[in-house]
Amino acid sequence: MSQTKGRVTLPSEANFLKETKEILERWGADAIRDSDGTKLDDELKALDAKVYSTYFVTRGHNDFASTHLDECVQMLLMSKHNLAICDTLTIDFLDGFYKEQVVADYRHDPKRYWEVIDRTNNTIVEPDLWTVDQDTDSLTITSAIPFHEYTVSFFVYMIWDPTQMYNYITNNWQDVPHDIPFDIRQPHSAAFAKRCLKDWLQENPDTDVVRFTTFFYHFTLVFNAEAKEKFVDWFGYGATVSIKALAEFEKEYGYALRPEDIVDNGYYNTTFCVPSRRYLDYMDFIQRFVAEKAKELVELVHDSGREAMMFLGDNWIGTEPYGPYFSRIGLDGVVGSVGGGATLRLISDISGVKYTEGRFLPYFFPDTFYEGNDPCIEAIDNWLSARRAIMRSPVDRIGYGGYLSLAYKFPKFIDYIEKVTDEFRMIYANVKGQKPYSGVKVAILNSWGKLRSWQSYMVAHALWYKQTYSYFGILEALSGAAIETVFLSFDDIRENGVPKDVDVIINAGDAGTAFSGGEKWCDPDLVTTLRKWVYEGGGFIGIGEPSAVQHGGRFFQLADILGVDKELGFSLSTDKYYTKALTEHFITSDALTPLSFGESKQSIYALSEDTEIIEYSNHEVHLAANAYGEGRGVYIAGLPYSYENTRLLMRSIYYAAHKERNFHVWQTDNLNCEVHAYPENKKYAILNNSNETQETNVYDGQGKCQSLTLAPCEIIWKEIH
Amino acid sequence: MSQTKGRVTLPSEANFLKETKEILERWGADAIRDSDGTKLDDELKALDAKVYSTYFVTRGHNDFASTHLDECVQMLLMSKHNLAICDTLTIDFLDGFYKEQVVADYRHDPKRYWEVIDRTNNTIVEPDLWTVDQDTDSLTITSAIPFHEYTVSFFVYMIWDPTQMYNYITNNWQDVPHDIPFDIRQPHSAAFAKRCLKDWLQENPDTDVVRFTTFFYHFTLVFNAEAKEKFVDWFGYGATVSIKALAEFEKEYGYALRPEDIVDNGYYNTTFCVPSRRYLDYMDFIQRFVAEKAKELVELVHDSGREAMMFLGDNWIGTEPYGPYFSRIGLDGVVGSVGGGATLRLISDISGVKYTEGRFLPYFFPDTFYEGNDPCIEAIDNWLSARRAIMRSPVDRIGYGGYLSLAYKFPKFIDYIEKVTDEFRMIYANVKGQKPYSGVKVAILNSWGKLRSWQSYMVAHALWYKQTYSYFGILEALSGAAIETVFLSFDDIRENGVPKDVDVIINAGDAGTAFSGGEKWCDPDLVTTLRKWVYEGGGFIGIGEPSAVQHGGRFFQLADILGVDKELGFSLSTDKYYTKALTEHFITSDALTPLSFGESKQSIYALSEDTEIIEYSNHEVHLAANAYGEGRGVYIAGLPYSYENTRLLMRSIYYAAHKERNFHVWQTDNLNCEVHAYPENKKYAILNNSNETQETNVYDGQGKCQSLTLAPCEIIWKEIH
Ligand SMILES: [Mg+2]
Ligand SMILES: [Mg+2]
Ligand SMILES: [Mg+2]
Repeated sequence: MSQTKGRVTLPSEANFLKETKEILERWGADAIRDSDGTKLDDELKALDAKVYSTYFVTRGHNDFASTHLDECVQMLLMSKHNLAICDTLTIDFLDGFYKEQVVADYRHDPKRYWEVIDRTNNTIVEPDLWTVDQDTDSLTITSAIPFHEYTVSFFVYMIWDPTQMYNYITNNWQDVPHDIPFDIRQPHSAAFAKRCLKDWLQENPDTDVVRFTTFFYHFTLVFNAEAKEKFVDWFGYGATVSIKALAEFEKEYGYALRPEDIVDNGYYNTTFCVPSRRYLDYMDFIQRFVAEKAKELVELVHDSGREAMMFLGDNWIGTEPYGPYFSRIGLDGVVGSVGGGATLRLISDISGVKYTEGRFLPYFFPDTFYEGNDPCIEAIDNWLSARRAIMRSPVDRIGYGGYLSLAYKFPKFIDYIEKVTDEFRMIYANVKGQKPYSGVKVAILNSWGKLRSWQSYMVAHALWYKQTYSYFGILEALSGAAIETVFLSFDDIRENGVPKDVDVIINAGDAGTAFSGGEKWCDPDLVTTLRKWVYEGGGFIGIGEPSAVQHGGRFFQLADILGVDKELGFSLSTDKYYTKALTEHFITSDALTPLSFGESKQSIYALSEDTEIIEYSNHEVHLAANAYGEGRGVYIAGLPYSYENTRLLMRSIYYAAHKERNFHVWQTDNLNCEVHAYPENKKYAILNNSNETQETNVYDGQGKCQSLTLAPCEIIWKEIH
Repeated sequence: MSQTKGRVTLPSEANFLKETKEILERWGADAIRDSDGTKLDDELKALDAKVYSTYFVTRGHNDFASTHLDECVQMLLMSKHNLAICDTLTIDFLDGFYKEQVVADYRHDPKRYWEVIDRTNNTIVEPDLWTVDQDTDSLTITSAIPFHEYTVSFFVYMIWDPTQMYNYITNNWQDVPHDIPFDIRQPHSAAFAKRCLKDWLQENPDTDVVRFTTFFYHFTLVFNAEAKEKFVDWFGYGATVSIKALAEFEKEYGYALRPEDIVDNGYYNTTFCVPSRRYLDYMDFIQRFVAEKAKELVELVHDSGREAMMFLGDNWIGTEPYGPYFSRIGLDGVVGSVGGGATLRLISDISGVKYTEGRFLPYFFPDTFYEGNDPCIEAIDNWLSARRAIMRSPVDRIGYGGYLSLAYKFPKFIDYIEKVTDEFRMIYANVKGQKPYSGVKVAILNSWGKLRSWQSYMVAHALWYKQTYSYFGILEALSGAAIETVFLSFDDIRENGVPKDVDVIINAGDAGTAFSGGEKWCDPDLVTTLRKWVYEGGGFIGIGEPSAVQHGGRFFQLADILGVDKELGFSLSTDKYYTKALTEHFITSDALTPLSFGESKQSIYALSEDTEIIEYSNHEVHLAANAYGEGRGVYIAGLPYSYENTRLLMRSIYYAAHKERNFHVWQTDNLNCEVHAYPENKKYAILNNSNETQETNVYDGQGKCQSLTLAPCEIIWKEIH
């Protein structure tokens, strides 16, 4: 039986009343929900718990959609590159796409709306030089230049909702109709969506919370001819694009977007691409539209006396919770999945709603809950990684998903989650509304800034990628560290300078990406603002290829701050004298060797004897610091997530901020442990982030030291005297 | 006593007559030379051997130079980047330079000839916004933009010859005057140089061969304030630049070069920088001038009945032996140092002279010839690596340098070189003038083409650099392989297409460098010519970052040929399906694992299921092949030199050329052994390239196999029946 109650959402399912009641009590849950593939029956709905019901706005209504196919969601796709061998080139533009998902839009004249591009000489092929054969879905260029490559940008209707498609294919469903998504930008769809929600609210009086899953436009998810994922961008605006949308954009902004503005060489403006002004305009256009339309639905929910909650995923495009229009929607809550600390913060830092909820792992699905497997392993890992982030910024609720009947077969797991839910409520009681002690305020600087807070380096939602893990570790480390973290864009710096209270700026990413900044760094205003700010005492940390663009004899435009640059070959003739690492440095004074820089970066070299080389191996620098006027720069070649690297980053931040003397305040000397202090309510907590017993010295707000032993995963709460 | 005689040059020194005679006989030498720090006495000169004498044209004449300081060699240097903090910025433009080597040129008005650049916004600062203080060698900008970086491009006089400076400092000479180099573009210097040579020829009647060391302009070698090397570019035109040269250039070409055309952001147009049209014009201008002036000196030598030989190094700028004007000079011979196979070929492939000579290692200097060390180790290594290249294209002579008296103290070494000289003459007798069997003809494609044959990836002459060894291995491998190798530039391809007899083109280097090609790959003509050529049956091998520039949705512009591209982040959203290597492939069928790609490249991925992935590890492709029409592409992530990688490259070349069936023709199956066949004189040789006994199968011209055992380093000669 739980010691405390509330703030927990339980998935349930029909014919599971008794066990649901038992777990409701044991976990102190106060809400139940349906899941993909489960329904709540009347007895469950009658329990003393709020009822969450999943609601799909633009799918699952084929009666409507199939009779309004002209209002189906559209996309603008780019064919693969096609090589001309002679002057006639026929392009099977749908080659590689899944024809169950997308069909060419011939309702609108291809000659007017499509674009054929010679990618070799980067020119548009005039429409009178190509023809489309609708019977074969092919396009023929009649005066191609041999051995140039051509692409076709073409409109399609997306005739299958990507999430349903994914579930359908993954679970090998049979005899289930394909959900046809419709576009509420269209008149009938807009009216239908509202009418439909009204009816549903009437038909579902037991629902307390309408869990929108989600609103209108799915993130870009395109399958290939073998019905496998072909393109996935969790941030992708692909499904927002339609001929109507582009026409309305032109009317509103006074200029027309080209198909190329959307397909962008086939990169489709992923979050790794430095966004053009035109694409940012388009995003803004969509966000305003989505907020306005979502608001109408939320108002219907409120009018019927229920709460409106949004799932942060699936059809979430345009609702960006850190965007300027989100609060206009008027949602009561947001729920999202928690893979670790950064994804917890992605949810918990959202403002403009009454509550946030994290859906924790593991899902109660057979891939984890099978005989012989211990689901506690994943649960402990998930909880420990999220818990340190909760200490900084708590979600208001936690919950689970899947088949409760399945989880119920694992009593040890049920026991463990009982402890977790109690621990969560205990933390929540202590930290909610409190400003935790932060030694330093850090801003992450990239092309997206606040809009994509805690969302840097993500392709599909927080999956591991070779090209990202060495950067994503920065967010994961910060998510649960005693650091205040904000996100700034290059435009923010240009327009408003560096905010007064920021101590340290981090710029991290591969050269040319939106995260490093690419051509943005050719902007003298950006560069001089940052140089001046650091010179006058700010701290700048560059990770990977920060401020990187070849310009003016430098690759790192802030090489002068960092004290290092990257050798691309052009300056090999210039002797590199500085190849000896210091024997000790504040940043690595408690580091274990060897340091891990993940994918790391090659050929980084120190610019002068003043550069503090902290790590040098394999003929290159991987860690360095540099004094710059009153400020400091720190360079790190990569930062995959680990407790060791969390400490390395913390020390780098304190060093960059010239606050080394404050490092041993609310701090431990065991890397597995962290301290969080809440001066307002005079509490502090020491966390054991590991599943083993740990001994550590703990430093209080005056730097006074005590020794402690913590049980595996333990939190010890203490009073500040 | 040597079995054969001739083709060997011996260093000697005064008071060493008896031993010199002994070694002359034992090594079969037919020429003796002086060296840095040695002189030949009359008795030596009277021996039955040609006498080589080192001759310096533009140094070692301080009597003249010190009275004509206005004719001293000039350079155009760039200061370091200087950060403005306020609107006044004073730049110590000589900071970091060695003031014993260079002094600012105040004879010519800085306002007219110098250039101050704002590197942050990439603009020129108008001369009326800065002033120069000659007393302090400083330049003050009076309206600097705070936190912009500024550089000064300024003329200096180089008042110390770099080679003498290097020797002086290295050997800690005392009381030796600094050699002041003078510029033969100047009237008095031009007249003096000729007069001086005439006099010298009269004064040195015993000299048979005038060894020019070298002509007029030293490769760029600049020292720092601590008298250490600061900038070294063996190809660098730094010392050719003068106010007079630029004025004459303008007159001839009809446009003026800017200082920036020379200093090039501080990279000084090193061989790694893709050359601009303007810089290529300048090089051509210098080469024509140098050839013309050198010719005048060579004619004086010939007029006096001697031979003229040029050392390939030191003041060799403008004499480029593969350049269009070299043969005009009329030299009898070229001598250069041999570090391995590629540097041997760099000498031996030179045409337009009567003979070439290689100076082999080790130098007879105390750094190798000291008690307890075995100089044979370096000698064997040097000989084995050069010998395989001699089998393809022999130098006409070999020689040594340094103190013969020192080498004489190592009898085992004297014995070993006796064998080497005999072996060299035996090889020469068999291969000179013969066209060795080559299974495939390969062209190395880069920005420099023929001009810098065998000179790719070099900074200082063939030293190891982290950024180059993974490419230099290509040249070293090819230098002694049964492959015909030529060098092509991008301009060659544009202007003349691919030569008819080329089977395979190799493009190899880091993105953006002159070797990969950078922006050259945005040229549709280049790209389509190569695509068409491969499509119709050619072979293309890309190593490292071939054809790399971000353009049209690709990073490798010939990704379609190679079957692979590099992920920079922009296409992370696109699924990469092809991650399984083939279990076997022709290219690796006799490879030892693990393969070694040196520095390798990250994030290479296969474009389609048709790509033949040969090696895949660490989530990326390192070796792949791809069919492209009738032709093929091969991708290799890097190729450091080894016998294993030589074989890997050979197989890649045969595969790209579609000549796998011919691979076992004049071939071995032991990686340490190679076969060279000379069909015209019906001889072939099997080489053991190792210092251990080797067993191997040997395949003859019909692919017939025989087994052989070779002693360490052995060559077995056989007749073709
Ligand atoms: Mg939930
Ligand atoms: Mg010699
Ligand atoms: Mg193919």
